[in-house]
Amino acid sequence: MPTKTDEFAYIDWLRQSIPTSPQVLVGPGDDCAVLADSNALPWLVTTDMLLEGTHFRLADAGAYRVGRKAMAVNLSDIAAMGGTPKFAVVSVGLPRSHGNVRMLAEELYRGLADLAAEHATAIVGGDTNTWAGGLVISVTLMGHAGPGGVVRRSGAKPGDWLFVTGPLGGSILGRHFTFQPRLREAAALSTLASLHAMIDLSDGMAGDVGHLCTESGCGVVLHADRIPIHADVGLLGDEKTPLDHALTDGEDFELAFAVPPDDGHRLLRDQPIAGITLHHIGEFRAETGRWLESKTTRIPLPSHGYEHRFAAPSN
Amino acid sequence: MPTKTDEFAYIDWLRQSIPTSPQVLVGPGDDCAVLADSNALPWLVTTDMLLEGTHFRLADAGAYRVGRKAMAVNLSDIAAMGGTPKFAVVSVGLPRSHGNVRMLAEELYRGLADLAAEHATAIVGGDTNTWAGGLVISVTLMGHAGPGGVVRRSGAKPGDWLFVTGPLGGSILGRHFTFQPRLREAAALSTLASLHAMIDLSDGMAGDVGHLCTESGCGVVLHADRIPIHADVGLLGDEKTPLDHALTDGEDFELAFAVPPDDGHRLLRDQPIAGITLHHIGEFRAETGRWLESKTTRIPLPSHGYEHRFAAPSN
Repeated sequence: MPTKTDEFAYIDWLRQSIPTSPQVLVGPGDDCAVLADSNALPWLVTTDMLLEGTHFRLADAGAYRVGRKAMAVNLSDIAAMGGTPKFAVVSVGLPRSHGNVRMLAEELYRGLADLAAEHATAIVGGDTNTWAGGLVISVTLMGHAGPGGVVRRSGAKPGDWLFVTGPLGGSILGRHFTFQPRLREAAALSTLASLHAMIDLSDGMAGDVGHLCTESGCGVVLHADRIPIHADVGLLGDEKTPLDHALTDGEDFELAFAVPPDDGHRLLRDQPIAGITLHHIGEFRAETGRWLESKTTRIPLPSHGYEHRFAAPSN
Repeated sequence: MPTKTDEFAYIDWLRQSIPTSPQVLVGPGDDCAVLADSNALPWLVTTDMLLEGTHFRLADAGAYRVGRKAMAVNLSDIAAMGGTPKFAVVSVGLPRSHGNVRMLAEELYRGLADLAAEHATAIVGGDTNTWAGGLVISVTLMGHAGPGGVVRRSGAKPGDWLFVTGPLGGSILGRHFTFQPRLREAAALSTLASLHAMIDLSDGMAGDVGHLCTESGCGVVLHADRIPIHADVGLLGDEKTPLDHALTDGEDFELAFAVPPDDGHRLLRDQPIAGITLHHIGEFRAETGRWLESKTTRIPLPSHGYEHRFAAPSN
């Protein structure tokens, strides 16, 4: 979209493409979106930016999947607070060097809009630019707190059980694009259990569970043999162990959460929850250490955060 | 900030730097910000992205001014709707190649935060990334509609007077960084006049007044000799006429607005308004043509949109 005229034509196309919603008093095309406010609950707001070469390779992924992922990672943050997404705004920097910038912009938007529609989220505004750099997309999502209140990272208590919502590791093979944010699962869980703390697993499980510990002032013991390892890990064929992948690979976008033991027992008994199998992988402790326990050993939980592998110079 | 550890250290610094606010139930550091909602008015939401080489040259501007501008352009959009800014989230892509990424990030943040504080706006969250590309910054701003209601682009009526809030052209010499978003002026105007339509001048006055016309289904006649030309235009020394600069230079970030003639007379009589001099530069017409009138001629208003000059290959 190298000229302003092209940009306005694209914005016209966007305005026609965006479904109307009674809560959206003014959508794209004015200086701001205007949103009806008949909500007694707090608002949740989150933002995530995806950068070409760091979070995706455009030639491999295609613009549709990049757009979908940009929406998905933000929806996952709303899920992690037990909330309900409502409105999104999207700003993009499109690479001027791309052969067909208009088609790129449309594919990107379709990826964003399809997933937004699945979760009843209205795209209400945005900012479209072209530049000499790579593709950049930034989504900001507003949502309501859930009826069970806001689930923070800081509420885990000693004795709480730690669960994850699915198998971990190897998302690099494609799941980091195709994952379904756990909104329905979080909503179901909030009616079935007292969610003391929750986080979505974006930077690697060990590190993200570490955040729950830090914010809650707790320690944790993970049971190595209970950590669910995704089948994708077997396809990676590198020197890391499968457990290492499950502990430190990024972008699983499963939820990790803390519940009291009684609720934990009931969740295990009533499986599956919202169609998924929960995994009880550890317990929070009053002592602040973080441990990985097997039948014979107990070692410190690896704490190294996830580095996006796309960013490695050799890759 | 090449490693995750550095990023977490920066986020810790951010959390300590961000002032608390009773409306911000949860600020940076969780999956979402949580905002208290005791507001019966609609919400305004806007987003704008600044890209290195298109909207600024980092080496010339410095990170502080880039951060300030990223906040300012969004505040200007809230002003253009007659609203009050409340909350901002910020996502950034920092150039990994920069000599001191942490200092860059801090300067950027100070520029954002200083202007946000001037306008009682809380920065409640964000997303910080490093990558191989240039500096990218995206701000999303939420605000309340003003007590006078939402001022859209679409409400101008035939006979309405068109005003601008200040002299135009030549912002490239530095005002596109240092401008003060017209929030106080818009708030004052909304109590003094019936604001039928309003827009902030980002893409060049002629084009932006064109948007008011399109959205309102009106035409317009501008009076060439009443269009205020900024003194900076005289310093540009290129082949364009001063009037051309005032009509088509971008990023003035003054407001253009439509009011009924009676209100227009009163505004002129009661000048200055909120410390500034308003300029009555034209009238809206029922016929959809857009004209530039002088004592002897009437020519079609130039409609060419503003192209960011930084993006020109020769620049």
